[in-house]
Order: sequence, then structure tokens, then C-alpha cells
Amino acid sequence: MKSLLYPQSVVIIGVSETPGNLGCNIAENLDRFMFSGEVYLVGRNGGQIGKRPIYRTIEDLPDTPELAVILIPAAYVPEALEICGQKGILRVVIETGGFSEFAAEGEKVEQRLLQIVEQYGIRFVGPNCIGIVNLDNGLVLPFVSMDPDMMRKGSVSLVSQSGGIVFGGIKLFSCENIGVNKLFSIGNSINLNENDYLEYLIQDQGTRVIGLYLESIADGRQLMRLAASTDKPIVMLKSNTNPASNEIANFHTSALAGNDRVCDSALSQVGIHRVHSLGEMADLLKVFQLPPMVGNNLAVIGRSGGQIVMAADAANLNKFHLVRFSDTLLQEIGKRTRAQVIKMTNPLDMGDIFDLAFYAEVVKAVLAEPGVDGVLMQHLHSQGTETEVTLELIQNIEKLSQQYQKPVVFCIMAERDEWLTLKAATEFPLFLEPACALHALAASRRQAQHRPQAPLPILNPARQFSGPIQLAGIEDTFGRLASAGFKIADYALAQNREEVLQTAERLGYPVALKIESSEVVHKTEAGGVKINIKDHDELEVIVDEMQGCFVPLFAENKAVFMVQKMASSGTEVILGAKHDPEFGPIVLFGLGGIYVELFQDVVMRVAPISEVEAAEMIEEIQGHALLAGFRGRSPADVESLKQLLVAFSQILLTSPEIKDLEINPLIVLDAGAGCVVVDARMHVC
Amino acid sequence: MKSLLYPQSVVIIGVSETPGNLGCNIAENLDRFMFSGEVYLVGRNGGQIGKRPIYRTIEDLPDTPELAVILIPAAYVPEALEICGQKGILRVVIETGGFSEFAAEGEKVEQRLLQIVEQYGIRFVGPNCIGIVNLDNGLVLPFVSMDPDMMRKGSVSLVSQSGGIVFGGIKLFSCENIGVNKLFSIGNSINLNENDYLEYLIQDQGTRVIGLYLESIADGRQLMRLAASTDKPIVMLKSNTNPASNEIANFHTSALAGNDRVCDSALSQVGIHRVHSLGEMADLLKVFQLPPMVGNNLAVIGRSGGQIVMAADAANLNKFHLVRFSDTLLQEIGKRTRAQVIKMTNPLDMGDIFDLAFYAEVVKAVLAEPGVDGVLMQHLHSQGTETEVTLELIQNIEKLSQQYQKPVVFCIMAERDEWLTLKAATEFPLFLEPACALHALAASRRQAQHRPQAPLPILNPARQFSGPIQLAGIEDTFGRLASAGFKIADYALAQNREEVLQTAERLGYPVALKIESSEVVHKTEAGGVKINIKDHDELEVIVDEMQGCFVPLFAENKAVFMVQKMASSGTEVILGAKHDPEFGPIVLFGLGGIYVELFQDVVMRVAPISEVEAAEMIEEIQGHALLAGFRGRSPADVESLKQLLVAFSQILLTSPEIKDLEINPLIVLDAGAGCVVVDARMHVC
Repeated sequence: MKSLLYPQSVVIIGVSETPGNLGCNIAENLDRFMFSGEVYLVGRNGGQIGKRPIYRTIEDLPDTPELAVILIPAAYVPEALEICGQKGILRVVIETGGFSEFAAEGEKVEQRLLQIVEQYGIRFVGPNCIGIVNLDNGLVLPFVSMDPDMMRKGSVSLVSQSGGIVFGGIKLFSCENIGVNKLFSIGNSINLNENDYLEYLIQDQGTRVIGLYLESIADGRQLMRLAASTDKPIVMLKSNTNPASNEIANFHTSALAGNDRVCDSALSQVGIHRVHSLGEMADLLKVFQLPPMVGNNLAVIGRSGGQIVMAADAANLNKFHLVRFSDTLLQEIGKRTRAQVIKMTNPLDMGDIFDLAFYAEVVKAVLAEPGVDGVLMQHLHSQGTETEVTLELIQNIEKLSQQYQKPVVFCIMAERDEWLTLKAATEFPLFLEPACALHALAASRRQAQHRPQAPLPILNPARQFSGPIQLAGIEDTFGRLASAGFKIADYALAQNREEVLQTAERLGYPVALKIESSEVVHKTEAGGVKINIKDHDELEVIVDEMQGCFVPLFAENKAVFMVQKMASSGTEVILGAKHDPEFGPIVLFGLGGIYVELFQDVVMRVAPISEVEAAEMIEEIQGHALLAGFRGRSPADVESLKQLLVAFSQILLTSPEIKDLEINPLIVLDAGAGCVVVDARMHVC
Repeated sequence: MKSLLYPQSVVIIGVSETPGNLGCNIAENLDRFMFSGEVYLVGRNGGQIGKRPIYRTIEDLPDTPELAVILIPAAYVPEALEICGQKGILRVVIETGGFSEFAAEGEKVEQRLLQIVEQYGIRFVGPNCIGIVNLDNGLVLPFVSMDPDMMRKGSVSLVSQSGGIVFGGIKLFSCENIGVNKLFSIGNSINLNENDYLEYLIQDQGTRVIGLYLESIADGRQLMRLAASTDKPIVMLKSNTNPASNEIANFHTSALAGNDRVCDSALSQVGIHRVHSLGEMADLLKVFQLPPMVGNNLAVIGRSGGQIVMAADAANLNKFHLVRFSDTLLQEIGKRTRAQVIKMTNPLDMGDIFDLAFYAEVVKAVLAEPGVDGVLMQHLHSQGTETEVTLELIQNIEKLSQQYQKPVVFCIMAERDEWLTLKAATEFPLFLEPACALHALAASRRQAQHRPQAPLPILNPARQFSGPIQLAGIEDTFGRLASAGFKIADYALAQNREEVLQTAERLGYPVALKIESSEVVHKTEAGGVKINIKDHDELEVIVDEMQGCFVPLFAENKAVFMVQKMASSGTEVILGAKHDPEFGPIVLFGLGGIYVELFQDVVMRVAPISEVEAAEMIEEIQGHALLAGFRGRSPADVESLKQLLVAFSQILLTSPEIKDLEINPLIVLDAGAGCVVVDARMHVC
């Protein structure tokens, strides 16, 4: 990556004297940002741009540049790349579009590119991107004209699957005064991908906070491992969450979307902060410029009563606690209020105090309170008269926040022109409203409190099942579960009426009778499940009925009966495992029956999970109280459930031939009595 | 209200020559905004401000002003108000703070004010406010120095319980270029309240869109009636949603919060758009400047692939449908794309086209498509080079949107300085990102599709129950429900073991046995409910057990048994009715048992409700499928449930002595079989 980001020399391939030539824009960008290395130009028509000659071929170059930027029609890219390889240029940015994101032929060209890099050991960015920006050395490669005024150098780096989002980010960061370090437009990322850039940024000294914009995730487990390995905050905007956007995203960056809830769970497992808009990303990037919020105790100080009422609402929503201020502090403030019409509470309404220097004193006193972890300061700026004192206040607060190593989120409303003057005059993060400021502060707390995790085992996230996939027999399925430590409700298969009745006698009533057939997927709906059969007489009737329903299947030996002893009563839960295309094996837990279907009351994790994570999953479902002992019910055996969830989460990793596996229901019995599998389904390859 | 907003003359009471005098600011504001009427000043020390003398008393004025503004310490306000009355000044703005919002003594002074206005027929704004602003005639009464540059005149008016929010609104509207018509800071609103201002704005010609900021609601039903009476969009920011903010809000404007979910339901019943931040309010106010979104069919056109992927996500989230463009349209666009690397879909990625004039042509062609109800246009502005063409594009789009009477939400990202230049150069609403633009556009659709409703019956929303409140006897409760048309499961009360057994025999097994006592609130938890008792033997055991549990109660004749015939099986639901302090009688519906307790799967409406609303309530619960016939169950009698909900919603209105009433459970039987009340509870006064 060093050759990519800090090259001694760069060649731009695809430059011409034609006005509006995009390659030319790149050269101009490098000059405007005072790129420290040598710049060469190549274009088949030759010519000259400024003082630089345009060489007709790469071979003509007087030197071997460390990095090449290619911006010529897609069909000619393989040839150019090959010549780079021959010349010994091993780092390349391919900005050209029109590859797999556009048409099937593009994919063939991409395959060719991969063969070439294999041969020469080239690593490249793109194709279909706007390249990279490194403000450390002025390496500004986008083919759109850029200006140093657009960006302040800082410690935020961004990796984006969309070039437009890089530009959007630059513009928004400019409005929000967020300092930028490195920007990557990664395009189709067929060679270097988001994880490569992320890995680099994690160890990059100039980068303190990382932003990611992704429409699809190439290797979710590697992403998780990288995120788990760093203390740097990672903020991810993951779009492409529904079928309609899939169509365009697929076109746009050849993305293939996974399940959005899986993505949510996976990111939160490793402490990646997921956001849903660039504005929200900017809020989080700003809060990560401040010292961390290590606890829940918040102080709210404001100039507008209405705004601090909303701050208190937002504090509640984000689970912050408004601490009680010490009497000393309140007395001190009380002495200074002019008309004694301010009540001494947290949130503290300073509306009556016009001396902004005193605001800073109050913030200092509040930060000094040991019980306070962070402060929200809400300011309503008076145009014209307060510019200087407001800036002084901001500077004071910036110092105090550093001194006490506690965050102060500073919300300010001002008229249009002044709002910009203030933002331009300080690097301290400014927020608009308490709602977004506290939402961001909650991310800071999450970052501070995130528990490091054991690294995920390495495996191919997108397991390809090439052979035929089939529904496993119930005995096989139950067998797998039994070896993982699950207890299965007593059962036996029976071919016919006689065997059913004998089996039931042997197992003991009450029993359940089910049809087992790969042809019957929804047994209950098809009338293939009867439970709580209390005696021989009832069973005789039911077995005849059921056989009647499925005559052809029995005739062709495609169905058997399962007789199962009814499990003791308990709480029904569901356990599921499957391969996610982005994150590999995942495990799902929820209450069984209508809860999962009507209320979607399920939680997911990327597998395998620890005991702590299993316990968290059990507690996270909305219906958790049902397991804890609800309305006089005895508590369920959550301890056993927890152990089983851990064991269950390992099955797909140890048995890669299993495509998916679902226990529905697992009956969780009373505490100490364990759990019993009643039914399960498994697909294998 | 006309005298308040368009007075011929104004007197400011509380003016002095002291530098920083707040009354003086008001006079200067009136001059700066070129208030058209006469302005008089009153202050006990006399003197002169500019050319105007400060009269020592109101009696000294040469004339009777139409409006007085009072800004003197709270204790002196009653006297000043009385003199206004004597002088014949019948409209007053009391800006002074330190009344009931601060201390109990303040409330006494407020009572005195109300006596005085009663005597003279005065109407006043406040106290504890920053007054009103009318840009129509330059009536700018806030005591903070203001400048005409701060505000553009337009058609949005705002009513706010917090003065700080009025200022915040002014500042944000300035940033967002939202034109303002009238602003009301209503303070403690003990005389004129939010409904009075709202009623005025509904008929005010200068006002097309109304914003409200409230921390509490004085008369929710009147608010609902007003909202239902107008086509003007009303956007409400209702804060103070949790206990922590109650404390400060109570102080801040003497607010007393109701239940936030009731508020949500009530506002949506009459089509008020509730928002949760000023930023969100600004987005909605902007979208209401555009023609209405009458349907779901949306076209997305954008310059950044990433942004339009997010637009498609947001379209899905807001339930917009991305229509298929006609072939003619796609061909036309196809002809113009430079390198043929743009796929012809909706969302349409225009990233390859640099000619902004063509963007307008595409927008025109898309608006002309009959199947398109509205457009999201996403623009990424290039600094420096595109200012003029971008402004032209905006002007073109503004015209096209008007011409086709369809909304175009225009999202634009630009660097800081240019962002402001663009905003200042056009009155057309500009949005930042697709997510907020489409959220706002959904409000436009809601406004266009809102069904007018029958006006709510007039009644005092905050019914005061002064006498003792008691739990009604079960026979009384069941009696009420029976007269409202409910069928009650057969039951009888029994004093002792013998009577219980006889009753059960008479009703027929299976039965339920319950304890009935005003001392036992949670019957089930206390062991006072046994169901499905199948015969005489079982009942004998149970009645003895239950009697054993509650020996003292039976001994003191404080308990009886209820024997009830078990209802046929069906779906258990819960119906509740109570008086909300802000909105009066409300009705609640949900699935019974654990659904209501663990999943809070309930919906509410302000009562009474129509059949259409009852049907909506039934469909809105998450577990609705359980009633519709889930997994092979037979469908429940939703028709009967609907009728009963309507009847139930009227009980609290016709029987004002009932404080609350809950049926839990009501069993909804199979379609055609009706519903049966199993248990109910009622408090009366």
C-alpha cells in the first residue's frame, strides 16, 4: 500500500490535449495539491500539457513510475495493464468504467485483468472508480477537477464503493469542517478490496477514525476480524438494503446484497458503528474527534428551554442519565443568575444569563464533577453581537474538554451566514440539534464500552454449494443434533398403521403423530401433524385420517410416520443456522411459533458465538420475559439453552456440508430440566 | 386577533434609557422592520429614546394604543394590566417571566391577571414569552435585537411554547431559506393558547403551512377539531416525552405531559405531521412549498450512483414505488449518454452526463410520464465551475414542478461556501440527502391522501375526578358492557362452596372459578383464577383451595366467587378506555395476554371512533394475522369486533362517571359467532 499512497512518481495513462480531457484533470489536481513526486503523462496522440510532454506509450517513459493511473476505454485497459507489468509498474489505479457493473462482457475483461496481475504481481484499485486521495502528500487522483479549498487535512479516512459518495463526503465534510486524511474510491474492487484498504488504515498513523461506504461486503468475516483488531472507531454506511436498490447497486458496483439484519448484527458484534446517511456519518465522525464518553452520566446545559427539553428527551432515548449536580455547583451558578428566574436542575437552563464567559465557567465546573461523564452544551447564537464571544466560548470548551478528557457536544443554531463563519473559524465539532448530537454521543459510549472479542475463525464466508442440495432425513438431522449435545424427544419411525400403534404403546401416551416426507415441506398446514394424542382410540382415528390425506405418497414409499412422545410443557424456541453470502455461517434464535412469524422476534449472530454472546441473544429478544418466568410461570432452563446455543453455533463450521439447519421447536423446560428437540430440518450438499 | 397582529398603534411598557434595556430593543425592532403603526414608550423614569419620549405612565399617553407590550417585573404586571384595561387597551403581550413556571407565588399573580382580563375583556399573549412577529406589517415584538436580514418573508407561520425554539426556528429557517409569515411565542398561555393562534392561522391569508412546537397540550380535542377543519399542512414538534424532560418542561412553560403514544395516535388521526427535531420540521415545511405528492409512484434521477442506491433504500422505507419508465423515455435518454455506460433503470444514474441542461430535459420527460407522481433529483455540485448551470437547473426544475403540479425534491451536496451561495440564490427548497427528502415527501403524500373526518364531539378533555374513585362491582361492569351490546360469558356469583357447586351444575361444565374482591387486584397472580375445570370433582378440590387462600376476605364478606362457563375457544383481545389529560377519552385495542404485556402490541385512538377507524385499529396491530386466520385457524369474527370497538369507544363519552374501563380478555370467536367478554374492570367516580 505504501507504493500506492506514497509513490515517488506517477504516470497518468489516457491524457490528451483535448479540452475537458479527464486525465488532464488528474495532472492538474496533483499540481494544485502540490504532489511531491514526479508526474508523467501518457496518451496515444502525444502532445504537451503545461511543461509536461505526453508520451505516446508507456515504454517511452524515461523512468519507471511507482504508480500508474489508467483512464482509457475499458477494452484497452488489459493491454495497458500488461505493459505496466512489463515495465515493472506494480501499483495501478484503474478509473475506467464499463466493466462487470455494466455488462457481461465487462466481466470477461475483468478476468483478463486478474490474469495479468497474477502474472506480474500487480495490485490495483478499481476498476470503475475515481481513485484515491492522500492529503499527506497531495496525491489527488480523481478525474474531476479538485481544489485544496475543498478539504481540510485531518484524521478521518474514508473508503467508498461509490465515487459519488467520496465527492458527497468531501462536500459534506467541508460543510461540517471534518478534517480528511485519505480517501479511497474502490469501484468494483476485483483486486484490492475494502478489507485491504481497511487493514492499511488501521495501522496508518495519519488516520484516527475510519468511514466506510459499502453496497455489498466481499468478505464479512475478514471485515469483522479487522474491526475487532483495532481501537480506531469505524463508522459504516451500508446501503442497498432492499430489492429495488439491489438492481441499481448491482449495476453500480457489481454488488450482491446479503440480508440486512445479518449485516446489522455482524457489525454490532465487532463494534462497527452502522449509520444510514452521510449526515449521520458526519455526526459520528465529529463526535470521535472528542474525548470518549466512558459512561452514561450526562449534563445538559442550554440557552433555550425548548432545546434542553428536547435534549432531555434525546438523553432518555439514548439511555443517558441526567445526573444530579452537587449543591456547591448549583450555589455557584445561582449566585450569578441575574433575575433569579432559573431553576437549578440538570438540564440547566441558562437562558437568563447573557455572559458567555460564565457559560464556560459552568461547563468547567460541571466537567469537574466526578459523576459527570460528558456534557451537552446548547447555544443559541445572536447574530452580529456575539461572534467573538461565541468563538471564545468554543475555544474555552475545546480546552476544557481536552483537560478533563470528557466529551462536550456543542450544539449551536445561528443564521445562515454566521453559521458558516463560526464553522470556518474553529475545528471544534459543532452540532445542530441535541437529537443528533446525543445519538452520536451514544456511539462514542458504545466505542468506549465495546468489549474486545476472540477473533473469528478464518473460513470462506461465501461458501458455494455446487452439488445438489437435499433435505436430510429426520434421523440424520436428529443424529447431528444429538451429537452436538441436544436431547431429542423420544420418537420412532413407522411404516404403517400397525407399527404406529405399537410404537405409541411402547413410547407411552400422549404422543404426537407426524408425516415424514421430503415431498411435504409445510407439514402442519398440510394436516401432517397431530399432537397431544391421548390414547390408542384417538390415535387409531388420526392415523387413518392422515394416511388418507397422503395416499399417493405412502403408495410410492415416499412417506413414513413419525410417532413422538409428547415433551413436557415448556417454552418453545427456534434455533436456526445458515450460510450468509457476506458473513458466512450465522445463527438465529427466537421464540417459536407465531412469535417468530408475526413479531419477527429473533436475534442473529455471526457464528460461532461465546457463552456471553449466547446469553445476550437470549436476553435481547422482546419475549425474553417468557423464559425468565412470566406471570407466575416457573423460570425456564436458560442455562441449558445458553450452552446449547453455543454448541449449535459451531455445527455449520465443523460440518461444512450442511447448508442450513433449523430446530423448530426446541422446548425449554423448567430450570434444571434442560431442553428437548421436537422437530428439526436440515439441508445438506 | 386582528388587533393583536395588525394594530394601528403599540405601546411598550417597561422602557428606560439604561443601555441594554430590553423594552428599547423592541422599539428598535419595530423601526428596523418598518412597522407601519404608531409606537409609544412607557417607563417610570421617563426620558427619551431617539425621537420618542418615554411617558411615565400609561395614563399620560396622548392616544389609546390598540396593543400593549408589557416587560416589567412580574409583581408589577397586574397593576399595568389593570391600567391598560382602564385606558381601553384590550390586546396585550406580556413578555415578563417569573410566573407559575417558576414558583407557586407566580401562579397567584397569574390568577390575578385572569381576573383583570375578565373584568375588562382583555385578551393577552404570554406571560413568559418573547412575543409575536408579523412580517406582513413589521410587528416584531421580541425583546432581543433582530434584523430583517434574519428572515425572508414567506408563507410559513410558527406557534411555539418556547421562545428559544422561535429563535432556533428563525435561525434554521434562515439556513434552509424557509420564508416566514407570523411567529408566536406563547409562553405560559394562560389566556390565549395554542388553539387560539392555530384557529387564527387556519384562516390567515398569509399562512399556507403551520408549524407548532408544544411541550404540553392544553385542549387536545379542540386542537384535533381545528386540524381536521383545514387543508393547510400542520407540522408539530411535540417534545417533553419522558420523565426527565418533564421536570424542566414543567418549569419552562408550566407544562404537564400526557402519554406520548396517545399523542402520536391523536395527531395522526387528524393528519397533523409529528416531527421530533427542528431539522425534521424544516424538511417538512420545505416539502409543503412544493405541489402535493398524490400517489406512491416515484422517479429517482441522480448524479451519484451511491446516493441513488440510498434513495432507492429510502423509497422502500417510505413505501414509494419506483415506476418503470416508458421505452420512449429511456430511448431518448439513451441517445444522449456519452459513453453508453449508464443503465436505463429507475433509479436513473446520470453520473456520465455532464450537461446539466439535459438533466432538466430528463426531469421534464419524467414528469410528463402519467405514471409518475413525483421525482427525487439528486445533484452533486462541482464547486466553481457549475454555479450558474446549477442555478439554471434549479430554476428549470422549479418551473417544471409547477407546470406539472408534481413535487420534485431536489437533493444537493456542495462545498460549504457554495452550498450557501446556492441556498441564498433560490427560494426553491433544497434538501441534503435522499433519506430526509423522501421522509418529507412521505408527509406530502400523507397530507394529500388524508381522509377528512367527522368532527370530534366537544367535551372537556381533562375531566377532573374530584370525588373518591372506586372499583365497580363485576355485575355493574358486566351490566354496562351488556347494554353497550357486548355478550358476557354466562356467569353467576356464589357466596360459598355449596353455591359454587350448584351454580356450576346449572351453567354446565367446563367452568372457570374466580375470586371477586376489590381487595384482590391481580387475581391470576394471587391464585384467584382457575380455568377449564372439567367436572364436579375437580371443582370441589379447587373451590376448597381457593377459599383457603383467601380465608380472611371471605370471613369479612369482602370476597365472593364467580363461576363462569368457559367460552368457546377463539382469539383473546383486550379493549381499554380511559381519560387522557390532554386528549380526553381514548380507546385502546390489542391482542390479549402476553402480547400486550411483552410486545406492547396495542393501538390507540381518541374516542369516539368510526367503523373505518375501528377497522384500521384491528389491522394495525402486529398480530393482526392471528385474527385473519393464521396457519390454518379459521378467521375470527372481525366484523363483530369492529362494531363492538365502535360501541365501546362511546361508553366514556356517554357515561362521564366512568374513569376507566378494560375488557381483558374479550374472546373473538369464529366469523359469524361474535365475541364474548370473559373479564372486565371498571373504575367509577
